[in-house]
Amino acid sequence: MTTTSDPVRSRRRKAREPQVQAAPSATAFTLTNPFPRMEVFSADEVASLHNASLRVLEELGIRILLQEARDRFRDAGAIVDEESLMVRIGREIIEEALSIAPPGFTFHSHTDGHDMPVGGRSLMFGAGAGCPNITDLERGRRPGSMADFCEGMKLIDSFPMIPKLTAVVEPQDIPIAIRHLHTTRAQLSLSDKMPFAYARGQGQVLDCFEMVRIGMGLSEEEFRQKPCLHTVINTNSPRQIDIPMAQGLIDFAEWGQVAVVTPFCLSGAMAPITIAGALTLSHAEALAGITLTQLVRPGTPVVYGAFSSNVDMRSGAPVFGTPEHMRTNFGAGQLARHVGLPWRSAAGTAANTADAQATYENQLALWGCLLGGANMIFHSAGWLEGGLTFSMEKFVTDHEVLQVVAAAMQPVSADLGEIAFDAIAEVEPGGHFFAAAHTMERYRTAFYETQVSDWSNFGQWTEAGGKTATERAHEIWKQALSEWQPPARDPAVLEALDAYVAKRTEEGGASPVD
Amino acid sequence: MTTTSDPVRSRRRKAREPQVQAAPSATAFTLTNPFPRMEVFSADEVASLHNASLRVLEELGIRILLQEARDRFRDAGAIVDEESLMVRIGREIIEEALSIAPPGFTFHSHTDGHDMPVGGRSLMFGAGAGCPNITDLERGRRPGSMADFCEGMKLIDSFPMIPKLTAVVEPQDIPIAIRHLHTTRAQLSLSDKMPFAYARGQGQVLDCFEMVRIGMGLSEEEFRQKPCLHTVINTNSPRQIDIPMAQGLIDFAEWGQVAVVTPFCLSGAMAPITIAGALTLSHAEALAGITLTQLVRPGTPVVYGAFSSNVDMRSGAPVFGTPEHMRTNFGAGQLARHVGLPWRSAAGTAANTADAQATYENQLALWGCLLGGANMIFHSAGWLEGGLTFSMEKFVTDHEVLQVVAAAMQPVSADLGEIAFDAIAEVEPGGHFFAAAHTMERYRTAFYETQVSDWSNFGQWTEAGGKTATERAHEIWKQALSEWQPPARDPAVLEALDAYVAKRTEEGGASPVD
Repeated sequence: MTTTSDPVRSRRRKAREPQVQAAPSATAFTLTNPFPRMEVFSADEVASLHNASLRVLEELGIRILLQEARDRFRDAGAIVDEESLMVRIGREIIEEALSIAPPGFTFHSHTDGHDMPVGGRSLMFGAGAGCPNITDLERGRRPGSMADFCEGMKLIDSFPMIPKLTAVVEPQDIPIAIRHLHTTRAQLSLSDKMPFAYARGQGQVLDCFEMVRIGMGLSEEEFRQKPCLHTVINTNSPRQIDIPMAQGLIDFAEWGQVAVVTPFCLSGAMAPITIAGALTLSHAEALAGITLTQLVRPGTPVVYGAFSSNVDMRSGAPVFGTPEHMRTNFGAGQLARHVGLPWRSAAGTAANTADAQATYENQLALWGCLLGGANMIFHSAGWLEGGLTFSMEKFVTDHEVLQVVAAAMQPVSADLGEIAFDAIAEVEPGGHFFAAAHTMERYRTAFYETQVSDWSNFGQWTEAGGKTATERAHEIWKQALSEWQPPARDPAVLEALDAYVAKRTEEGGASPVD
Repeated sequence: MTTTSDPVRSRRRKAREPQVQAAPSATAFTLTNPFPRMEVFSADEVASLHNASLRVLEELGIRILLQEARDRFRDAGAIVDEESLMVRIGREIIEEALSIAPPGFTFHSHTDGHDMPVGGRSLMFGAGAGCPNITDLERGRRPGSMADFCEGMKLIDSFPMIPKLTAVVEPQDIPIAIRHLHTTRAQLSLSDKMPFAYARGQGQVLDCFEMVRIGMGLSEEEFRQKPCLHTVINTNSPRQIDIPMAQGLIDFAEWGQVAVVTPFCLSGAMAPITIAGALTLSHAEALAGITLTQLVRPGTPVVYGAFSSNVDMRSGAPVFGTPEHMRTNFGAGQLARHVGLPWRSAAGTAANTADAQATYENQLALWGCLLGGANMIFHSAGWLEGGLTFSMEKFVTDHEVLQVVAAAMQPVSADLGEIAFDAIAEVEPGGHFFAAAHTMERYRTAFYETQVSDWSNFGQWTEAGGKTATERAHEIWKQALSEWQPPARDPAVLEALDAYVAKRTEEGGASPVD
């Protein structure tokens, strides 16, 4: 996010100087999570879950569909059955990989001050991602297009709590063999925030690498040394890694870019119905993927992902913000810390519209992640229908929650000026502090100023049209997009990107690999 | 709550046996909060805030409008100025009171198993209270009536997470001198849950005591020994306790009933604009009120209340679920634990309608209280407009959040059966667990079952009318009220209550005291 690309805030700043800033001492690029962590397992139980996961990999094995990945595991000492494609990975291989995987790293940005440390108590929010559909109050629910994708990039660029880009919606009007060229071009030209790439086969991945390298002005050597791009690797739970996912693990590791290894283990569907069982399976799959990255390039940055929730046993649909989802995140955090890796989780909702359910489920899920100590909380703004639709309005209302949480994470001073004995002495019993010197000195910056909430009284609110928060959110994102300005770009870089897109398009692009 | 008075759950239980229960091992009567506590102050800073509060009471004093209360403080050694009505309370008086006030106690219930411990990690939710207006989707926003008050009692009675009654709305169609008789009669006849009384002068309070004693079938001596009724004492911040509040502190203490001493210190209005300053003032006022209860009856149960938030500096309106509100609760919890008393806080929202803002602010505020370790979280379901309106639909959606939180607080087992190694072995890679023996044994009770959330897919949801959560909540409360059954009551008790109401009405009731 650049100052100029933050139209809503900059406009309001102008209109009502001096502007109160949300969380003045923190930006989304350097958030740290001070909340104590909720633990649901004893140390012995964590060890026992970890051990069960090692047994799964060692005794049962995991099916890996990519030859190169199986070869790498075999070379490291794993037992490979080429008929069943099963790979049994001894615990010494896993433990060796865990000992060399870094406990943290820093995402490189080409914008000053926007490098992002990941690990420890770092915290980064991601917008809802991967949705086939997009919706808003004006245009309704529809399959995503490239225009929608670009709006999504501008949206994220305009809102400060989301420091990274994400494929909010799938642009289905672009042929799939060249879609990655256009989505990468859009990310690199519409925002300075960190880009994202799908791992849909080596052809596409290498295209994305080259474009990001060009877009960020890095030499190939620099690109290999500086993590500045991430992908999400979803295993095909249970116990399977398919070709594009295995290839993505290898390619991202090889090039020093970041695979977020995220089994999507839904209790009762792709995973055991119990929290401990789903975590055991998810942990095993994550360890397998993480180990592969370390076999490819020892010490390459990698993120432990866990995104387990449960399914509604009546419909089979994944649900979020449930007690099971929250408690799974508490436990997943313990497992991530047990293996000493930065970890990623996600919020979300199964609601079909941006209503109270969408709002409360997303926040319940968010607190599960926050108290679980996740370093990256994806899908934290805008997801509907368990990820089938991205809502522009819900993005804005969810983002407001992220802003409040970020501000609530700031320290509280208890120095003498803050304790305000003299101010208390100054105001007579039954009086008020509105005009106290202590108040006058501080009122401009004392409180968080909301972007979405309406704090006027019922009469004023009714007179102003009685708009709901979702209706106000609609106005807010429309205004943000109308005032959005592209980030400063060297025209030569944009030309180089265009030339690359043209060349690769002429060559037929790269079809996704199944 | 009795089984028969829980129509929504019992109906669903019948329809879909076997029913999944929310938080099977906990009821709202015995909830404990396992979340780690968020601390914003060091131990030294807590001591420094506490000391500043003692200085406020000792050096500046507090204005107490009731003669009897001033006399009691003077008898204990405080310095009283009868002209200014200021009472300066030495720290030794406060410290003596804190040393004898109990760290916890148990609310007595006349329903088996519904006694409620308060203190330590106990947790109790209260519904939105004290609203002049009530609203619902059908009838709109209107001043509260006695019929609305009774609906509120039936509503609370029907929903399991709220173990106590509360004056959800002010019945303005009942003359104020006899209103307390009718609200107390309604509470005692419509629910087994713990009643509440306002402290609006001794006449009303003694009426309520007598009616509760009759309604709960207690002798006067038993009533004095068993806390079974509570009130909220709001100081008139800053540094003032008015006549009905001071009288309420004395009367509730005298009779062994529970005063929840709650300064409502809004930063920037009735309190300093800083969190530390507002807490210093709030803490001082709470300590003054608590001390009075202990002077009246050493060892009587009492609750430390803190309900500080901030005001919107543009409108002056109190706001909730803000970063300041949350952080104030983190700090208030530290102060409550410093003095070793059970403590009460509150959620809430300033939203004008049951929209996304109402939903997210209430939950943000709730997490401030939960991580602050509050034992009683009032206004946690149904409040709108900072307490000016009670929303029937918002009560239901907020209650859903309480149910999820209560279930998320339950322990997670990591025994071998839960870890499910054998189930993982049973399901082939890429397969699913729907039919696994491990799943079949557990699916009926494995997951929380929602009351409000709709987890069907977009097509099914649209076909079913595309209802929002708030629209579903409307149906849910209407059904609950239509199926509500009165609790079992000895007709003689009801007759005695009626006779008491008739007699006191004939005598003119008791006007509230200013």
